[in-house]
Amino acid sequence: MARDFDIGDSVQCLRYYAGWADKITGQSIEVDNKSKLAFTRHDPIGVCGQIIPWNYPINMWAWKVAPALAVGCTIVMKPSELTPLTALKLSELAKEAGFPPGVINTVPSLGPVGGAALASHHDVDKVAFTGSTVTGRKIMEAAAKSGKSPHLVFESADLEQAASWAALGICYNSGQDCTAGSRVYVQDTVYDKFTSILVDRVKALVVGDGLEEATGAGPVVSKGQYDRVWGYIDSGKAEGAHVLVGGEKRQSKGYYVDPTVFTNITSDMKIVKEEIFGPVLSVGVFKTEEEAIALANDTTYGLGAGLHSNDANQCMRVSSALEAGTVWVNQYNILNNNVPFGGKKQSGIGRELGSYALEEYTSVKAIHWNFGDKLDWPLY
Amino acid sequence: MARDFDIGDSVQCLRYYAGWADKITGQSIEVDNKSKLAFTRHDPIGVCGQIIPWNYPINMWAWKVAPALAVGCTIVMKPSELTPLTALKLSELAKEAGFPPGVINTVPSLGPVGGAALASHHDVDKVAFTGSTVTGRKIMEAAAKSGKSPHLVFESADLEQAASWAALGICYNSGQDCTAGSRVYVQDTVYDKFTSILVDRVKALVVGDGLEEATGAGPVVSKGQYDRVWGYIDSGKAEGAHVLVGGEKRQSKGYYVDPTVFTNITSDMKIVKEEIFGPVLSVGVFKTEEEAIALANDTTYGLGAGLHSNDANQCMRVSSALEAGTVWVNQYNILNNNVPFGGKKQSGIGRELGSYALEEYTSVKAIHWNFGDKLDWPLY
Amino acid sequence: MARDFDIGDSVQCLRYYAGWADKITGQSIEVDNKSKLAFTRHDPIGVCGQIIPWNYPINMWAWKVAPALAVGCTIVMKPSELTPLTALKLSELAKEAGFPPGVINTVPSLGPVGGAALASHHDVDKVAFTGSTVTGRKIMEAAAKSGKSPHLVFESADLEQAASWAALGICYNSGQDCTAGSRVYVQDTVYDKFTSILVDRVKALVVGDGLEEATGAGPVVSKGQYDRVWGYIDSGKAEGAHVLVGGEKRQSKGYYVDPTVFTNITSDMKIVKEEIFGPVLSVGVFKTEEEAIALANDTTYGLGAGLHSNDANQCMRVSSALEAGTVWVNQYNILNNNVPFGGKKQSGIGRELGSYALEEYTSVKAIHWNFGDKLDWPLY
Amino acid sequence: MARDFDIGDSVQCLRYYAGWADKITGQSIEVDNKSKLAFTRHDPIGVCGQIIPWNYPINMWAWKVAPALAVGCTIVMKPSELTPLTALKLSELAKEAGFPPGVINTVPSLGPVGGAALASHHDVDKVAFTGSTVTGRKIMEAAAKSGKSPHLVFESADLEQAASWAALGICYNSGQDCTAGSRVYVQDTVYDKFTSILVDRVKALVVGDGLEEATGAGPVVSKGQYDRVWGYIDSGKAEGAHVLVGGEKRQSKGYYVDPTVFTNITSDMKIVKEEIFGPVLSVGVFKTEEEAIALANDTTYGLGAGLHSNDANQCMRVSSALEAGTVWVNQYNILNNNVPFGGKKQSGIGRELGSYALEEYTSVKAIHWNFGDKLDWPLY
Repeated sequence: MARDFDIGDSVQCLRYYAGWADKITGQSIEVDNKSKLAFTRHDPIGVCGQIIPWNYPINMWAWKVAPALAVGCTIVMKPSELTPLTALKLSELAKEAGFPPGVINTVPSLGPVGGAALASHHDVDKVAFTGSTVTGRKIMEAAAKSGKSPHLVFESADLEQAASWAALGICYNSGQDCTAGSRVYVQDTVYDKFTSILVDRVKALVVGDGLEEATGAGPVVSKGQYDRVWGYIDSGKAEGAHVLVGGEKRQSKGYYVDPTVFTNITSDMKIVKEEIFGPVLSVGVFKTEEEAIALANDTTYGLGAGLHSNDANQCMRVSSALEAGTVWVNQYNILNNNVPFGGKKQSGIGRELGSYALEEYTSVKAIHWNFGDKLDWPLY
Repeated sequence: MARDFDIGDSVQCLRYYAGWADKITGQSIEVDNKSKLAFTRHDPIGVCGQIIPWNYPINMWAWKVAPALAVGCTIVMKPSELTPLTALKLSELAKEAGFPPGVINTVPSLGPVGGAALASHHDVDKVAFTGSTVTGRKIMEAAAKSGKSPHLVFESADLEQAASWAALGICYNSGQDCTAGSRVYVQDTVYDKFTSILVDRVKALVVGDGLEEATGAGPVVSKGQYDRVWGYIDSGKAEGAHVLVGGEKRQSKGYYVDPTVFTNITSDMKIVKEEIFGPVLSVGVFKTEEEAIALANDTTYGLGAGLHSNDANQCMRVSSALEAGTVWVNQYNILNNNVPFGGKKQSGIGRELGSYALEEYTSVKAIHWNFGDKLDWPLY
Repeated sequence: MARDFDIGDSVQCLRYYAGWADKITGQSIEVDNKSKLAFTRHDPIGVCGQIIPWNYPINMWAWKVAPALAVGCTIVMKPSELTPLTALKLSELAKEAGFPPGVINTVPSLGPVGGAALASHHDVDKVAFTGSTVTGRKIMEAAAKSGKSPHLVFESADLEQAASWAALGICYNSGQDCTAGSRVYVQDTVYDKFTSILVDRVKALVVGDGLEEATGAGPVVSKGQYDRVWGYIDSGKAEGAHVLVGGEKRQSKGYYVDPTVFTNITSDMKIVKEEIFGPVLSVGVFKTEEEAIALANDTTYGLGAGLHSNDANQCMRVSSALEAGTVWVNQYNILNNNVPFGGKKQSGIGRELGSYALEEYTSVKAIHWNFGDKLDWPLY
Repeated sequence: MARDFDIGDSVQCLRYYAGWADKITGQSIEVDNKSKLAFTRHDPIGVCGQIIPWNYPINMWAWKVAPALAVGCTIVMKPSELTPLTALKLSELAKEAGFPPGVINTVPSLGPVGGAALASHHDVDKVAFTGSTVTGRKIMEAAAKSGKSPHLVFESADLEQAASWAALGICYNSGQDCTAGSRVYVQDTVYDKFTSILVDRVKALVVGDGLEEATGAGPVVSKGQYDRVWGYIDSGKAEGAHVLVGGEKRQSKGYYVDPTVFTNITSDMKIVKEEIFGPVLSVGVFKTEEEAIALANDTTYGLGAGLHSNDANQCMRVSSALEAGTVWVNQYNILNNNVPFGGKKQSGIGRELGSYALEEYTSVKAIHWNFGDKLDWPLY
């Protein structure tokens, strides 16, 4: 059976998924605006930790390895204590077959040690295991929709528009938005001009009674939130950031927070690292595209990201490089019901909206129907 | 903004998913055997517990409710403490709009109390929440591939074939298989004939040295497993089940376990309820199709299930009713690389094999590209 | 360029489509009735005639051959007069690579002769060519929805229901229906019983004024249609078929045609071969399943087909074998908006309904976007 | 039946397809080059001529109208002579329901007159009819892969690269390529610079013996093709175009044609309008983007089109506006096996390559399976 089924089925499994490698497509999605287009890309999750069982040591290896490789993941595998040599041998064979070193890594160890190490390692993007039913009893869609979303403004951008979208990004719903664009990075050559327009934009927002027609933003939701936001503003000042606009409490009653923009920021400031959930924006500066991408991705979150540029190549390059579930090009914070929404990294799992959200609520049943094939028993 | 965006977007979201209700399709899959066909059905997960945030109280409600309803789920919602009345009002409106009582249920409560109750309730099939990033940091594919898979034999079945597949289901890899068909239920009218053939089938299996060509099953994997399996066999005897065949330890060396078939079983016996992961089969009897389905589904597992019948209507009815991720019709334990495999209920989440497995390793990025639409700021 | 691109791209193209062979799926479709299920299968079209151009003699060969083979078609290829030897050599290589004789056939010839022969041959199911723009100017969806749809009644069928569906099949809209089930074949063992019930069913239909609530069928649409239908009835009598029920003109005014059932039919009778578009049914008899399938498929049409059986294996076998775009199992003439509808063989091309119909009205544009790759010119 | 089924089913059909309008997606496709991305858009075909049968006058109307509207087509309908008033009434109702004038147009007429007018009208992009089986007997994939593909060079383009791609577009395979970029239009501000580089590029190509390693292009395929190409070159000269480079026959033996570039062209010259299938390029000039698009689309062909620009908005705008089945952005003539290829307008139907090509070779069978629903007969 090992010879005829465990190995035979594994070879077929590897071949089957090899054929998928150039057939994985995302969606291009027309949205309700002829000046916009959305599309999805099905990126590899990244480094996959895989804990595999012993009962079919080769086939279970193939089941985990084959689809992960087909989409471009790399693998750190902890085989069962009962079959470590098989797993090591398989990894070795894979390397001989042409997979570069580092793509398939095997770390034999005892379950509690190796499994825990994999599960707790920050550079492992996903752990797939076959464990006890207790841990797996419920499908927990930990849709941790948090973020510290970056917004990049390049020199070729329409600065007037970029400033408007940046203002929208931080002021909308008083920044109480999981995709609030709370970090803006501007190319040095246009930094002064952009920030000047941004100040105008932010000042144009009327903060006040939410029932007034002219009001652009009402108070934040509660005293707790109000105190929390002001805590961050005080922290920003204390850590040495410069208040470009806002930053002063009103004397009047109500949990109002005027949009506050900080400049002269550094990456280790609390206002730059933590989600504030209020209208508090940090504005930084960059010289090169590489630097911009590095700053944008320097976060454990990955919910949203924006970029403003009219350089066609740059738009494609940067949108490819930004590590976020949603990337806006020359706009911000606009969602469409038919486009999926969700995060990468610590910004949660699962997708809402679009056809993708349907998968979260469906359970796939496979029916195998035999209408003529006869089983000869015993097999041997 | 509440009026124009929170409500407006929500209406659109509900309309968008309403349009999906009759457009959700599974796959029909040709397998490498012209006498077989596989297909998938995208069933509703069941009762969805939903814990929603407060920042867009209507839109977040719509995002969760709309796709869940589109696929046929029912909902138990715990709104944010800040917006319980909105959620109650929305549920009420949904009922007025024609949703029957019980489809959308709202249970306002404080987070720790209501959330924990939802998460721990056995009849809640999935909990979707927006929580802290700590809990959601890793995508844990708790692929708990365990089971106590049932096998139904109806009177119209080809009994010779049904017995062969039942033998395969419990003897293959010495029952060390997550889909081992460890519970067989037989219609009373054919019970005697079927069990007689089954005894022949089981006896035809040669248990012995795995390196011998004629061997059908080798020893179990370890002393631990050997002791565990014999513990279950002893338990079956002690609880009053009848040993139809097997059940006696060999005197010779080696962790051999001859296939053991119990009859005269009851649903509360350990051998009937727990996964043994060895060649130990419980055979029960039923009178009606309803009884058969009830017995099959009377388990917290839902990995595999089989049925043998040549009644066309019955095959469709029963395969629809069996609560398992894989249902075999007139065969058992045959998987195909292009057909998804995974469980329902406590038998784990996620899918392996087929195009579905690719989703487990991909992270969807949505790019929204604006190439002409201008933002007028401020909105008000 | 021949070496590096024409051959290189061809090899990749063949590999790419080889990977599709086990990844082609149809849809399983839930319909608005829990006692029904629909699914589609993407069958090979059959024998493909392919006329290929000369400018990239290998790559154009691969483009046509690879997808056709991936889905299971066989090929009759007429290469360009300028490259016959290349095409013959490629076919030879394909055979050496393991394709059985007859799968890829190459027939070098001059265009007008070979092309015309291919295009006019009855056993060629599709001709793909690259011709002048005049012939290809319009996408003609020749949706020739005609048929002479067969209806098979096997001995295990629920005869009461089968007779009801057979009556519906021929009486609905007075048979003025492109999928009218105008040929019923009954297994000999149940022929007498079935026809007896069928007579009752047909007699139960009230033919009369379409504005009366109790009317089951009104007059046919026009005098022309009335005369045409009666012409067929007279022809059936003249050719020796036996009138089981109906067959007599009313004396009263109006283009009424009472449902007419013929037995004692032979396959060469006009009433059996031609579409009548009226309530005229031919009932034949068969002994074996093979004979039933042969009778059903003995037509140049392929729009609809029905079968009644409660043998699960038989339902799958026969629904696989029937050459029709729509196959009904234990029902007839029921369509669903989300299930595609269209014909095989001479019953037209294209699909209406379901997601498939959308493809008929869309034109696919592929955008290839380069954002960094540089061309070194010249290539050599 | 008209009341309960013809109307009832039609309403459901309209609702069903209304739900598709925002759910139609194309594919985003990763290609084997990290600096490129491909995606497809499923555009409406355009003006659909529809000839509908009489037997279910409302439902057949809905079947044709609903999917066409869902994807964005407009309709010119010729109803059956037997049901013109029904069709007119339905169109009127559609307008009342909010469809703008001109979207659904009904032209009652006799079949031969109205049908022929629809089929022969140049502004009707597709005709769907239900005709005799004779015309529809074969699926003719008239893949008329012809073209006169335009190539637009905008002022923000990388002119060095644009010139290289333009040279590739016309020189590759000596222009014997259905997507040869035989018309290049350059923005006036960069016209001189671009053409100067282009001359260098064209001169860098070595035309000679195809077996020499250094050769970039061999002779054209035959004497007939040689004469045909020179006929076009002579025609260009005679019609007053200016030869920028090439244009002189070699004295030596062999069917060599040096790449020939014409400037000073007008849209009515034969070299600008007709497919030459040789290395003959026409270069024109434009001032505005609108003019560029108009020039590019001023052809009855629609196979390929290219644009060179580094203006992000422009790339999206122009690629949306170009009427071609394949649009290259900042590259030309590069195809990928997993991206569909085919034409719009007179450049043929059907798609090759990618998953789309599989549809050309498959025939969809829909199986409707009833496993419990009972028919009460008669219906009335």
